[in-house]
Amino acid sequence: MRFFSDNAASVHPKVMAALTEANDQDTAYDGDALSAQLSGAFSDLFETNVEAMWVATGTAANSLALAALCQPHQGVICHEEAHIEQDEAGAPGFYTGGAKLMLASGAGAKLSPDTIDTMCAAIRDDVHQVQPAAVSITNASEYGLVYRPEEVTAVADVCKKRGLGLHMDGARFANAIATLDCHPADVTWKAGVDVLSFGFVKNGGMGAEALVFFDKNLSSETHYLRKRAGHLQSKGRYLAAQILAMLDGDLWLDNARAANQGAQIIAEAAGERLLYPVEANEIFITLSASEAETLRRAGFDFYDWGEGQARLVTSWNQSAEDIRPLAEAIGAL
Amino acid sequence: MRFFSDNAASVHPKVMAALTEANDQDTAYDGDALSAQLSGAFSDLFETNVEAMWVATGTAANSLALAALCQPHQGVICHEEAHIEQDEAGAPGFYTGGAKLMLASGAGAKLSPDTIDTMCAAIRDDVHQVQPAAVSITNASEYGLVYRPEEVTAVADVCKKRGLGLHMDGARFANAIATLDCHPADVTWKAGVDVLSFGFVKNGGMGAEALVFFDKNLSSETHYLRKRAGHLQSKGRYLAAQILAMLDGDLWLDNARAANQGAQIIAEAAGERLLYPVEANEIFITLSASEAETLRRAGFDFYDWGEGQARLVTSWNQSAEDIRPLAEAIGAL
Amino acid sequence: MRFFSDNAASVHPKVMAALTEANDQDTAYDGDALSAQLSGAFSDLFETNVEAMWVATGTAANSLALAALCQPHQGVICHEEAHIEQDEAGAPGFYTGGAKLMLASGAGAKLSPDTIDTMCAAIRDDVHQVQPAAVSITNASEYGLVYRPEEVTAVADVCKKRGLGLHMDGARFANAIATLDCHPADVTWKAGVDVLSFGFVKNGGMGAEALVFFDKNLSSETHYLRKRAGHLQSKGRYLAAQILAMLDGDLWLDNARAANQGAQIIAEAAGERLLYPVEANEIFITLSASEAETLRRAGFDFYDWGEGQARLVTSWNQSAEDIRPLAEAIGAL
Amino acid sequence: MRFFSDNAASVHPKVMAALTEANDQDTAYDGDALSAQLSGAFSDLFETNVEAMWVATGTAANSLALAALCQPHQGVICHEEAHIEQDEAGAPGFYTGGAKLMLASGAGAKLSPDTIDTMCAAIRDDVHQVQPAAVSITNASEYGLVYRPEEVTAVADVCKKRGLGLHMDGARFANAIATLDCHPADVTWKAGVDVLSFGFVKNGGMGAEALVFFDKNLSSETHYLRKRAGHLQSKGRYLAAQILAMLDGDLWLDNARAANQGAQIIAEAAGERLLYPVEANEIFITLSASEAETLRRAGFDFYDWGEGQARLVTSWNQSAEDIRPLAEAIGAL
Repeated sequence: MRFFSDNAASVHPKVMAALTEANDQDTAYDGDALSAQLSGAFSDLFETNVEAMWVATGTAANSLALAALCQPHQGVICHEEAHIEQDEAGAPGFYTGGAKLMLASGAGAKLSPDTIDTMCAAIRDDVHQVQPAAVSITNASEYGLVYRPEEVTAVADVCKKRGLGLHMDGARFANAIATLDCHPADVTWKAGVDVLSFGFVKNGGMGAEALVFFDKNLSSETHYLRKRAGHLQSKGRYLAAQILAMLDGDLWLDNARAANQGAQIIAEAAGERLLYPVEANEIFITLSASEAETLRRAGFDFYDWGEGQARLVTSWNQSAEDIRPLAEAIGAL
Repeated sequence: MRFFSDNAASVHPKVMAALTEANDQDTAYDGDALSAQLSGAFSDLFETNVEAMWVATGTAANSLALAALCQPHQGVICHEEAHIEQDEAGAPGFYTGGAKLMLASGAGAKLSPDTIDTMCAAIRDDVHQVQPAAVSITNASEYGLVYRPEEVTAVADVCKKRGLGLHMDGARFANAIATLDCHPADVTWKAGVDVLSFGFVKNGGMGAEALVFFDKNLSSETHYLRKRAGHLQSKGRYLAAQILAMLDGDLWLDNARAANQGAQIIAEAAGERLLYPVEANEIFITLSASEAETLRRAGFDFYDWGEGQARLVTSWNQSAEDIRPLAEAIGAL
Repeated sequence: MRFFSDNAASVHPKVMAALTEANDQDTAYDGDALSAQLSGAFSDLFETNVEAMWVATGTAANSLALAALCQPHQGVICHEEAHIEQDEAGAPGFYTGGAKLMLASGAGAKLSPDTIDTMCAAIRDDVHQVQPAAVSITNASEYGLVYRPEEVTAVADVCKKRGLGLHMDGARFANAIATLDCHPADVTWKAGVDVLSFGFVKNGGMGAEALVFFDKNLSSETHYLRKRAGHLQSKGRYLAAQILAMLDGDLWLDNARAANQGAQIIAEAAGERLLYPVEANEIFITLSASEAETLRRAGFDFYDWGEGQARLVTSWNQSAEDIRPLAEAIGAL
Repeated sequence: MRFFSDNAASVHPKVMAALTEANDQDTAYDGDALSAQLSGAFSDLFETNVEAMWVATGTAANSLALAALCQPHQGVICHEEAHIEQDEAGAPGFYTGGAKLMLASGAGAKLSPDTIDTMCAAIRDDVHQVQPAAVSITNASEYGLVYRPEEVTAVADVCKKRGLGLHMDGARFANAIATLDCHPADVTWKAGVDVLSFGFVKNGGMGAEALVFFDKNLSSETHYLRKRAGHLQSKGRYLAAQILAMLDGDLWLDNARAANQGAQIIAEAAGERLLYPVEANEIFITLSASEAETLRRAGFDFYDWGEGQARLVTSWNQSAEDIRPLAEAIGAL
């Protein structure tokens, strides 16, 4: 059984069904009936007037968000282990026209308000140094930790003080909400987030993420940038269909809860091995090379995460029955 | 009935079925079993060893191809009505890091070897002028005309003489082959094409095009550029599945033939109105405003194409019965 | 005697003297006493409150101006023979992050308001087509023709109507003013120009041009862009010194008058050979290959300008005595 | 007396004289007689066949070098306090088309071979992570320390092993050579450096640095990039003149020795206050706010360098008599 990443899981049957249902001729690009519902659906979900657009990948969503927030000669503050820094092949530099990711550290890949503030204070306000224009945080973080509403608010307060926009990479936003058990608005626009990359692909979608602009001034040019990046698919209705199916009846939340529950089963078995509290669907544990070998021989796949450590990720479609053998195997090490 | 564009048509049932069949967990990105078949499948089709990769859109395919052929300070010669110039929102400039499209004219949006050669000859070989690095031609062209093998060869000969790479935008490559009735190799690598954007979305696909590198030296860096552009979908197997389904049993050719036959029905009815010979699935006709109004009132949708002209595009899923009413309506004008 | 280009002439003694005078320690970059005078000096000259900055070259000045006016996904309308299109190696694409030069034609490398308006009208207002953000005109034009104040006003009126910024490439602005005999304000901000590249290098300077922002909102980010482009020289005072010396006592106008008068001497001799009226210091004439050969054998250097044509440029430091031999040689052909 | 930076010092009389001597008409850009001597002069100096070109600033020189070594999707390893990272406003990102500076730490702003090797080893060889293409080191470093020939060789060995190019930022290369007392070749091409930014502006020049390519394959495209960046000055002969004057009779070395000797005077006085050994013309010392105040009241200007620390820089034109008062004032604190 695979615990490499939730981004390799299958697509939820309801999403597949939505694709079939959408399979008729309609206007191309985002002129179709389904795409037209997107901003409305997210406005309903977030209980505020947002502008939403579909894109195929989280990298595209994040990069477009940063390009909306940051000019080519400016910078974006993010965690040194942020996905945009570590795993997106320099996409932020590409989309922003050469802007700089300004790297900060922090436990569990989370940024504290103080870290951001101190970093800003150390930058001379002259033309020789790159000036930050935005902050990007990931919720749930790259180590599966969540930012609580008050934590986001504290980060946003520094952003306001420093004149910075705030982006949230929500590749696993659903998993964060499932854990936080708060309204999606609480940890986003009410807390001061300007743009959210709302992930669906890791959570049962096929190839559609949503870029949600709470600050609608930021979205107008992004329509051009999406097309210019080759991300305005001509049959966009199939992306809209996926997302609408995920929103329908809170499927996104059900799927995330399922994945999170699976993670808790492993977390309990892992006990002292846990490197971080398990607040989403990622589990980081200490695991020696020989222990890793034992698990792999038993049929469990996962990534090593530096020496003596491993990352396990549960997915929406893994039931408790699927996961228990791994939990038991870990317990038995 | 809609004749706006083939890019709005529905997805072929076999492609839908392939998505369902692919719906199991597999390795992410292009590490899955289906993506692994792509280069082989295209090597078989073209009867030579190629490297192929999927991307979601034609704009991404074209832009990645140009970025592989052209450095930021260089240029790409193309027709002034080429899709890359007119309809891609500046994507070539984005992907190449600011390279210049160098515009040439030619009947039916086709470039002649002489035009390219004359254009190159007029560029001073100094650092003040942008030097061309590649030529991009579209087959079938933006006016639905095809380049025959010997025409491509003649263009490629100038490219070789001038040290230029050759890209073919094949958004409607299938329609071209259906008309040319030649082997796909004849009008591509055997004629001197280095990279082909092979379109499937307009021909029954959902969101997958193929970038086919005949010059495999060009492809290695493109893997990085695709990721950097946010086009490496984590569930890439669903793109591979679409393309493999289209290649299977030559579905791509059947669909294109169907669309082309529909276009011929309209072409016959249009007679003297035709602005160009109909060699693919696009028909350009003279049509006065009142005539256009008459057709639209009768339920036919299409684009005006400048004053007194219109563009009609047929799709893979429009049968002769679907199309005849339009043909009759045109005949009755 | 050389008539290749005014950009190869020597530096005016007063400019050399100003360098010597500036040769003491001062604050680096543009924090020195001379640089601090720049905006004031140009505000005086233009009789309005401007922001001015030095850069070493016209290409840098033009490109920074365009980057201030145009986002990466937008375009700049210019003449197809504009220096920014023909002779700057793609610098506008580099500085703007990939924006597109949108080429228009017009006699004598001048743009008419109608041409610009028609061009804008033909661009669909959708995300597929690059939208223009600015117009760039050259005064004096690449064929040595001047835009009169009312002509600039007419262009600016179209710009306002279409929401476009207006840049003037004034590599030979001094020559234009010398001919127009108007106040510099009349043909710039009073006529609707937002940014001017004010050239000095072709007119007796060494390596300093001025970028003059009439719309001061445009200048703030440009300070960052200049540094980011490597154009914030640490000993900027030597650039400021050159420009201030050129402004002092209207040396810039005297030099331009001298060059223009030289051009008139040749123009009179050229008579029917003239391809354009001579309104600055460039003369374009019909000249057969054998005639060109004759002139060159007599010691006169110049550029061929296409077949059977030649370009001659006079410089600030060529006296009537210097020039008469060429005029006579042309007359004697 | 000013100890802010050597980049604010006056221009050496011999350089001024060279400008005057160059003040005649010649071919524009780098087609003149002086520019033509540049590669030869540096080939003589380095005792190998190099290609050299002038640019106005160190930022431009560094950025062009990095653009020659690194593609837009790649990265450059440098020290986290390197000038290219801290003080060039993101110019490397601009010139390379968005490449990433990959930051390493090390005492005295120097990079060790192990640090580079470890950094490379930690980067997964996949398309998700930016792959490094080059290393940039600064000699003398930002803290005034020199790399010895064997240290550069050790860095270059890692570069070769990892397939990376090696750039040396030599803004204060002259000061390094003055201290090392070695042949310039020993610490550059013989040690494995591919491109050198050879600074003159901080050492008595006005506005001219040299970009020296030891790997001549790297230089051909750079001619285009220099023009495209607006750095091909039309009166380039005045830049060539400056550099040739600096090379003539080893003026560059004499000036650097003078500055370094001044630094030694201060270093001796500073004693325990020294934060780093003084190996060039920069002195970093502990200095409390009140001590700084005392020195400033006595007429000495310099930069604070973080809390309780200060940076003092000596220049070519400061004699022992100029500097002794500062040394005494420091001694008296």
